[in-house]
Amino acid sequence: MLQVGVNGYGTIGKRVADAVEAQPDMTLAGVAKTRPNYEAEAAVRKGYPLYAAIPDRADRFHDAGVDLAGDVEDLVIKSNVVVDTTPSGIGAANRELYDRYDTPAIFQGGEDADVADTSFVARANYDDAEGAQFVRVVSCNTTGLSRLLAPLREEYGVEKARVTLVRRGGDPGQTSRGPINDILPDPVEIPSHHGPDVQTIFPDLAIDTLGVKVPATLMHLHSVNVTLESAPDAEEVRRLLSEEPRLFVVPEVARIDGTGKLKEFAMDTGRPRGDLWENCIWERSISMEGRDLYLFQSIHQESDVIPENVDAVRAITGTAEQAESMAITDDRLGVGLESLFDGPRKRVVPRS
Amino acid sequence: MLQVGVNGYGTIGKRVADAVEAQPDMTLAGVAKTRPNYEAEAAVRKGYPLYAAIPDRADRFHDAGVDLAGDVEDLVIKSNVVVDTTPSGIGAANRELYDRYDTPAIFQGGEDADVADTSFVARANYDDAEGAQFVRVVSCNTTGLSRLLAPLREEYGVEKARVTLVRRGGDPGQTSRGPINDILPDPVEIPSHHGPDVQTIFPDLAIDTLGVKVPATLMHLHSVNVTLESAPDAEEVRRLLSEEPRLFVVPEVARIDGTGKLKEFAMDTGRPRGDLWENCIWERSISMEGRDLYLFQSIHQESDVIPENVDAVRAITGTAEQAESMAITDDRLGVGLESLFDGPRKRVVPRS
Repeated sequence: MLQVGVNGYGTIGKRVADAVEAQPDMTLAGVAKTRPNYEAEAAVRKGYPLYAAIPDRADRFHDAGVDLAGDVEDLVIKSNVVVDTTPSGIGAANRELYDRYDTPAIFQGGEDADVADTSFVARANYDDAEGAQFVRVVSCNTTGLSRLLAPLREEYGVEKARVTLVRRGGDPGQTSRGPINDILPDPVEIPSHHGPDVQTIFPDLAIDTLGVKVPATLMHLHSVNVTLESAPDAEEVRRLLSEEPRLFVVPEVARIDGTGKLKEFAMDTGRPRGDLWENCIWERSISMEGRDLYLFQSIHQESDVIPENVDAVRAITGTAEQAESMAITDDRLGVGLESLFDGPRKRVVPRS
Repeated sequence: MLQVGVNGYGTIGKRVADAVEAQPDMTLAGVAKTRPNYEAEAAVRKGYPLYAAIPDRADRFHDAGVDLAGDVEDLVIKSNVVVDTTPSGIGAANRELYDRYDTPAIFQGGEDADVADTSFVARANYDDAEGAQFVRVVSCNTTGLSRLLAPLREEYGVEKARVTLVRRGGDPGQTSRGPINDILPDPVEIPSHHGPDVQTIFPDLAIDTLGVKVPATLMHLHSVNVTLESAPDAEEVRRLLSEEPRLFVVPEVARIDGTGKLKEFAMDTGRPRGDLWENCIWERSISMEGRDLYLFQSIHQESDVIPENVDAVRAITGTAEQAESMAITDDRLGVGLESLFDGPRKRVVPRS
């Protein structure tokens, strides 16, 4: 049984902790947090061992009446793998700590690619993580793009991808972020950093990305163009994408018109925190114009990387093969929404 | 002196009326309105002759204490040209009235293209309107795209354009429109109607468009990709666009990051209603990747078609050539913002 520590217990960390606890082959060694806020309180109520991420601040927990199991160093020693879900830049600073105890660690997409031996998307390059000391699960947007592009590359070949990312301004809990009633080029430079980040997964891929920021908090929306090397019809592409376990082709019959109803649907189906681990691709948007594929997909910025973090734990420790890991992760989390619409059953085994 | 009637006095109509009054060669015959609301009151205060758009409802104006000069039929008889700025679909129904009195009319982009003999963007196809009985000024987005594509086609040739239109949900005054905190594919079908609408101006142009709707009211934002037939560098493209009178290349030095600051700038410079008649193209976004041009441009949905309506009046009556009309319109309205930044002076004469 793998002992997994989670350093950082915010938006991603709390989800990774729950996902780890749901797996049959790993257990949560504990979580480290800087402050005794509402999330720390919730962790304690769940019975998760809580560690002080900053030892000097342990008093704050004591003062708030929150029990600690120790400091983050204790957690690193106790863990077979640490998932670092601290804010951007802090992960890189934590690397020395993991290195000191020879504990493999998984960083998030907010860190630069060179923090790790490899960047990681389970569907695309699982095997690259085996034997690595440090792995970086890429950002939500890069994960969503890589999952989509992997089967398209394999099946049709990709000449060039051009994607406009209509990005939510902040998460629902990020009360100080904007914009309000504005539409901003963000970044105004083209291409945005997303394209080069996808290239950490597919080094030879031609991709240009553009970022826009809007007053919404629920999910991102990608306006996708992929010039393929062949010209399948739209129905063939739809079927291909439908077969991918982590792509949810939103059926026309669902009458889901935007990110609000997607989240509502996730909550109605009992998803924890209303999470959508899958890319949500509007069936009706899948179109071919010559060799140009177009579609819209929404990405839940808070949760689509969660299955990837679980898979990265198995990949970095070499405890399961790609197909096996993804199948277990998806089964234990409950990934896969299309079956609810009597659509074709998803294949659990990824294409290879 | 051309007598110009404006039928419909809402978002577009009130702006067209003011723009007509500002011209040296035309005068406002009057405006027709259905209801005595705040806009009718404002028209009367400006001294604009007010006509009842629906004769049966003339009593409502009398009851509200608003004086009428007559019914819309009187306005049509009195006018050399009518600009129809009624809501989508009403224009087509009004056609018979204009036809009855042999009065040339200019419709807006909400009408189907077949309402008129030709669709119209001054920079692109001014001469097509000469001698026509009915002309249709295309929608704000189509106008913005055509103005951008015209010089690119002439200078470099366009292999294909792919544009994602991040659309404002409604105008500031449209209080019942959404979305709130959502990002919607809209329409979810690809391509959206905007591409075919641009083809009413450039019939041989390859263009695919995608529409997204977001919670903002100030302006649209276009994420533009144009695959050119040659490969100029970005600076050359920037210079080309800079020379176009109705394209405002927003200089880096202005520190304008989105539509909110663009509108703020328009108000600070004393623009009526904070209008932005020009496409607003972020200088820093203009990028070339091989033959792929990328840029962001914002379009003020309430006002970018106003200069086009004024030019359409001259085009349909044959009272001025393209270059002359555009120069007069721009001069009288005050089109052109770049000179405020000591940039190169705009050419008043369009490229031909």
